[in-house]
Amino acid sequence: MPKPKLFIPGPVDISPATYEAMCAPMIGHRGPDFEELYSSIQPGLQQIACTTRPVFLSTSSAWGVMEGAIRNLVQQKVLNLCCGAFSDKWFDVAQRCGKKAEKIQVEWGTPLDPDSVRSRLAEGGFDAVTLVHNETSTGVMNPLAEIADVVNEFDDVLLIVDSVSSFSAVPIATDQLGIDLLLAGVQKAMALPPGLSVFVASEAALARAESTPDRGYYFDFLEFARNHGKNNTPSTPSISLLQGLDAMVASILKEGLPNRYQRHAENNALVHQWVEERGFAHFAPEGYRSRTLTAVANNQEIDVPAFVKTVREKHNFLINGGYGKIKGRTFRLSNMGNETPESMKELLAALDDVLPEFV
Amino acid sequence: MPKPKLFIPGPVDISPATYEAMCAPMIGHRGPDFEELYSSIQPGLQQIACTTRPVFLSTSSAWGVMEGAIRNLVQQKVLNLCCGAFSDKWFDVAQRCGKKAEKIQVEWGTPLDPDSVRSRLAEGGFDAVTLVHNETSTGVMNPLAEIADVVNEFDDVLLIVDSVSSFSAVPIATDQLGIDLLLAGVQKAMALPPGLSVFVASEAALARAESTPDRGYYFDFLEFARNHGKNNTPSTPSISLLQGLDAMVASILKEGLPNRYQRHAENNALVHQWVEERGFAHFAPEGYRSRTLTAVANNQEIDVPAFVKTVREKHNFLINGGYGKIKGRTFRLSNMGNETPESMKELLAALDDVLPEFV
Repeated sequence: MPKPKLFIPGPVDISPATYEAMCAPMIGHRGPDFEELYSSIQPGLQQIACTTRPVFLSTSSAWGVMEGAIRNLVQQKVLNLCCGAFSDKWFDVAQRCGKKAEKIQVEWGTPLDPDSVRSRLAEGGFDAVTLVHNETSTGVMNPLAEIADVVNEFDDVLLIVDSVSSFSAVPIATDQLGIDLLLAGVQKAMALPPGLSVFVASEAALARAESTPDRGYYFDFLEFARNHGKNNTPSTPSISLLQGLDAMVASILKEGLPNRYQRHAENNALVHQWVEERGFAHFAPEGYRSRTLTAVANNQEIDVPAFVKTVREKHNFLINGGYGKIKGRTFRLSNMGNETPESMKELLAALDDVLPEFV
Repeated sequence: MPKPKLFIPGPVDISPATYEAMCAPMIGHRGPDFEELYSSIQPGLQQIACTTRPVFLSTSSAWGVMEGAIRNLVQQKVLNLCCGAFSDKWFDVAQRCGKKAEKIQVEWGTPLDPDSVRSRLAEGGFDAVTLVHNETSTGVMNPLAEIADVVNEFDDVLLIVDSVSSFSAVPIATDQLGIDLLLAGVQKAMALPPGLSVFVASEAALARAESTPDRGYYFDFLEFARNHGKNNTPSTPSISLLQGLDAMVASILKEGLPNRYQRHAENNALVHQWVEERGFAHFAPEGYRSRTLTAVANNQEIDVPAFVKTVREKHNFLINGGYGKIKGRTFRLSNMGNETPESMKELLAALDDVLPEFV
């Protein structure tokens, strides 16, 4: 079967320019060629992450850094804000690291409520909060600024934010919001192949790490900080992906961040319009909908797996049939990465071509 | 400055065929396209690893799995066999994971002695041993079979082996030797870009992991085993590197493993001959020399950094000027990956061209 164009919520299609950059000659990672690559990436990544701090490069998927955040930053007890597959799992992972964890659980499709975060933190005993900004499984974008404000009311509680599927597509004011640990993968809105994560640690986060025992080596944030001083990484980095990242960061800056945000918003709006005009509903409530993907509520009870399969077979586009326990009750359309209104319209036309067989 | 051809001990040059494979269309990692890729890689990797067990794919450098081995397999106390930068560091990493660790330390450039391993294990209290088969920093290849035999004399002591820079270049009889955890990176003799590691866990290793607390998620060996059953990985994998790996495994099988071992041995012998004929010495003793790189003892006290620099500037070849505390006292010439007698002779001719300025 030919490989379809991807409209799943990551990974997404890779541009020829990115592939070309990834095929630059291999370089050694302990020497000036790598230091040059590393430092070339920094200023642009800092702009995208809205930070003046270093942006560390982890050779892992985002889960590695999500676990790393637990191992580095939690000493007493973490509060996991749970509203979908990935945020729920963070609660599980925290316990697997041997840490005390509690959670606020809202129903999938619902955003987190800042007030409930305040009341829970007021009970005391917590030293960290985890939040998934854009819960990819449900298409919910949580009220990051409001939750950040609440967490910042509590001294000594660090805010850990997963922006895996929002990074570079919507502004995330890392420094201004007082986010202590921001992390993202690169295979979502950044449109790189997976295998690499980026993260920013506040001074408070690094100070906390210093006194956290058993944080290991591979995800030790202090090792990242120490090696950053030498324009390097603690372990052998994923050099080809960094060469691709370097090119992608340059291309994002060339596009301009406001334009990039705008393009994602426009592409997203096209999908929203399609959802509404075709009589579907949104799985996420208004005001809390992701700008990079749309989780469509299957209110028309179409046969989602067959729909996904037919779209692929007839048009060679791959969409996603829902994640985990809401598989089939939802399907997901991504607009992240390099897509344009034109390419989104091609997808929507393909869906229109196939949909009549199913409703 | 143009990027040099790499004769450093990893990463090494990537072939056009590998780059081409890495640029295949991106695929989703939760679906049949990825399952097909995953299962396509397995039989060949199993042959290379001399195992009938699954070969797990970790999106990390080898250090991730080296730390994972500690977190999954050590409950009582680990014995780290230390003979160079990487094996020494494993002792440090074990302690950073909060585990009890002791070490046998031999001088850099010396191999481990199986008898000393036996006496130390006989003291009791250990449940795991770490061994770096081919210590890349010193060019020493340790007597794997002999040490494995010793460790196997002790029930309940697991043998963890790093074959990062020997994997696919020399035979490693994983199953036959009773290795409980074999791990390797792919950027050494496999000649892929870095960012991916492979590992094999014995039944005893998986059984041990089951009762080891706080092993986390990202490197939880049981998660790898569970997902392997679905031809998948616990976290989003480095898909482009796996596409490259698939092509490389096919190319290794096409070359034939005995031919590949032979080619590495021949290339290595050419370098050894050069070392001896030019009046240099080996840093590693006879019988314990790596087959993938040569650590040259700088007995002629040449200015190594200037030598390395001149070789690059005049011939665009990059060699390595020694690792860590033996920088300058040694320099290292790699023959791993896709090199041929012809390409090795080009390197040696370049060294000959430059050497007279330095001796």
